[in-house]
Amino acid sequence: MTITAEIRETVAGLRAEVARLHAELPRYGLVVWTAGNVSARVPGRELAVIKPSGVGYDELDAAAMVVVDLDGRLVDGERAPSSDTAAHVHVYRQRPDIGGVVHTHSPYATAWSARREPIPCVLTMIADEFGGDIPVGPFALIGDDSIGRGIVETLAGSRSPAVLMAHHGPFTVGPDARAAVKAAVMLEEVARTVHLARQLGPVDRLSGADVDRLFDRYQNVYGQ
Amino acid sequence: MTITAEIRETVAGLRAEVARLHAELPRYGLVVWTAGNVSARVPGRELAVIKPSGVGYDELDAAAMVVVDLDGRLVDGERAPSSDTAAHVHVYRQRPDIGGVVHTHSPYATAWSARREPIPCVLTMIADEFGGDIPVGPFALIGDDSIGRGIVETLAGSRSPAVLMAHHGPFTVGPDARAAVKAAVMLEEVARTVHLARQLGPVDRLSGADVDRLFDRYQNVYGQ
Amino acid sequence: MTITAEIRETVAGLRAEVARLHAELPRYGLVVWTAGNVSARVPGRELAVIKPSGVGYDELDAAAMVVVDLDGRLVDGERAPSSDTAAHVHVYRQRPDIGGVVHTHSPYATAWSARREPIPCVLTMIADEFGGDIPVGPFALIGDDSIGRGIVETLAGSRSPAVLMAHHGPFTVGPDARAAVKAAVMLEEVARTVHLARQLGPVDRLSGADVDRLFDRYQNVYGQ
Amino acid sequence: MTITAEIRETVAGLRAEVARLHAELPRYGLVVWTAGNVSARVPGRELAVIKPSGVGYDELDAAAMVVVDLDGRLVDGERAPSSDTAAHVHVYRQRPDIGGVVHTHSPYATAWSARREPIPCVLTMIADEFGGDIPVGPFALIGDDSIGRGIVETLAGSRSPAVLMAHHGPFTVGPDARAAVKAAVMLEEVARTVHLARQLGPVDRLSGADVDRLFDRYQNVYGQ
Repeated sequence: MTITAEIRETVAGLRAEVARLHAELPRYGLVVWTAGNVSARVPGRELAVIKPSGVGYDELDAAAMVVVDLDGRLVDGERAPSSDTAAHVHVYRQRPDIGGVVHTHSPYATAWSARREPIPCVLTMIADEFGGDIPVGPFALIGDDSIGRGIVETLAGSRSPAVLMAHHGPFTVGPDARAAVKAAVMLEEVARTVHLARQLGPVDRLSGADVDRLFDRYQNVYGQ
Repeated sequence: MTITAEIRETVAGLRAEVARLHAELPRYGLVVWTAGNVSARVPGRELAVIKPSGVGYDELDAAAMVVVDLDGRLVDGERAPSSDTAAHVHVYRQRPDIGGVVHTHSPYATAWSARREPIPCVLTMIADEFGGDIPVGPFALIGDDSIGRGIVETLAGSRSPAVLMAHHGPFTVGPDARAAVKAAVMLEEVARTVHLARQLGPVDRLSGADVDRLFDRYQNVYGQ
Repeated sequence: MTITAEIRETVAGLRAEVARLHAELPRYGLVVWTAGNVSARVPGRELAVIKPSGVGYDELDAAAMVVVDLDGRLVDGERAPSSDTAAHVHVYRQRPDIGGVVHTHSPYATAWSARREPIPCVLTMIADEFGGDIPVGPFALIGDDSIGRGIVETLAGSRSPAVLMAHHGPFTVGPDARAAVKAAVMLEEVARTVHLARQLGPVDRLSGADVDRLFDRYQNVYGQ
Repeated sequence: MTITAEIRETVAGLRAEVARLHAELPRYGLVVWTAGNVSARVPGRELAVIKPSGVGYDELDAAAMVVVDLDGRLVDGERAPSSDTAAHVHVYRQRPDIGGVVHTHSPYATAWSARREPIPCVLTMIADEFGGDIPVGPFALIGDDSIGRGIVETLAGSRSPAVLMAHHGPFTVGPDARAAVKAAVMLEEVARTVHLARQLGPVDRLSGADVDRLFDRYQNVYGQ
């Protein structure tokens, strides 16, 4: 498969958007060196735009991004796609409603994932953004679609756009790449805040009814 | 109600000031993404200037700010006001002495609020700025004036310009918006420092007499 | 006393230096808002240059600095001197070898001071810079020379250029203002590192003989 | 020994590279003030480029770097070499495969070293980058080649490019200086994440077989 002139323009816009969104990862302390990546589905196409492998955030302009098909094969770009591409494209294949995926090793979220412990819904911000506890996915090795399957299966049992992959780190999703990046930022914020709260004593969960009310309001009323 | 030419000038200055003050929130690590807001009462008017809902801090210039009446209805501006507007205007209605309100989810202060634990007055900085323990407010859902009432009732029992709303996060107040932002900054600083102190052992409170002496001196003598 | 033309030039250089050094405090995370100050003795004069009270770090240029005599009275400058001036000048009066004083409320150092617990000498960096445990000074109220006396008495029993004033925060000293700022930076670094080390288990002190060897070498051999 | 015109060009490139890499240390929070250093072996020569002693990161341009022989004697440059030079050159003498060495006192890694506790391999990122637990080296005083010997002996028993020197701080190595800096950055990241994980409960190690699979894949497949 090659990219036709027809879709090159769409891809150009997404390359720029995905490049810009990568800058949010170090800005919010979610990544060091090259250890995190953002992808976006090309709307209406079996394609995604993703970070190239092993490239620093300072060098990530639109031209550096690569385009892959949903089997993870390089379609357009000068570099090899991120080594996490198989996980991203598995999510896109299984979940047509998802348009953006983010993977980081943000420290507080990854600490919960190392203990295989869900982040309990003890804050209104968690109810708003995640709709309940933030779940832990299985331990899965890189190299095939094990990580992608673990993400999809865990997301299926939750309203949360974030999954803590055991001993590895978080993946977040959203209708587009910007929403997935927002989820990654909010995840680290609540992972940190609940960590701090729990360090000095026990913390009660919000009631299920309150969580439902907050989640519903935030998803349907909030914003412009 | 519409804004007359007469008060447009006052509002223009406050819009610029509130926009500038929003930049202090990410600068001091009090917020991520769009999760915090500053408002200022328009002196002598039943109006306030506040952040629009769901807008990032990079885009918050004076023109983006919105003006609401003290029932929270949009009076001037192109966007919907912050979803926390009801809490801000409730405070302005009940407390004529308050000219600025700030809401954040700053991590250390929010951690204390998740445990529903007041920050004990163990530092001279807490005595200076807060005049005693920093109190916890009730758990209240967004959507009506429950949060506003919780803030006002909790402030009534304390010298502190900060309230830790349970499972939610801090609100701070002041005679103007700048003072409320300073309180939000100092709150996170002391929330963090006492958290750190307590992690490695018990910490004694200052005596009530010492707290009174420090608070009185700081409020009446300090500054230019 | 007034400043003569003869010493105005010396003071001008020190004003610029002290203004520059104030920028190091927020850079290294030692202060928020206006809560910290640097002073420098005017060599050969009964004068010191210090931060004005209640002024933000963004506004601290050379012209904003003030000159005081060693009783803390304003000699030159447009603003009131820092409310911590009495402590700084007490140190200069009692210790002719000291040419710079820094006060912050840096969070990790202040956490140790809230527990009234010295920072144990468990790292080569502490032996190098502080020559042993970093001592705790008494609890003292602002308003007279109690804080200054507490600093001088505590320094007298130690090789450390840093004192943790109980329930308040650190003061550091040096032959000049730059050395005192360096001590404040290194203090927070070791306060943080030992805090982290102790969170997960006990930590052994270095032997007295090793501390002596390291301190001697660092003070006499290190640097250009 | 003096530098001939023949090798001056190679050294000029390395000076610029080592200067640039020093900027990564404060950027990633690995150092304060002047407390860390990067060196690079001059390929095919008994020489290394290293940071001068006691110089701040703001002043570290290519011209400020110094060239030493592998006994640590100054060969080219206007300043005394880093006080850690003996450790760096010992590594270069004993390990011809190593082309870059980095020393920091990054807080989380140094906290593990203060407890003399290896960082357990509980994350895929640790398996990828370090191939197992990150080992602790002996306590050694500066002044002769004790530190260098401790590094070399500890590296010999591990796949890790990082050693936690007891009560002192980390040293990292790599085929070139950039790889050693990357190892220092990733070390602090995992030291912090495992610290956070362990604060709230026990964490299981990955199995030896999984660690081997991850390490092998990352070292042989990853990157461009």
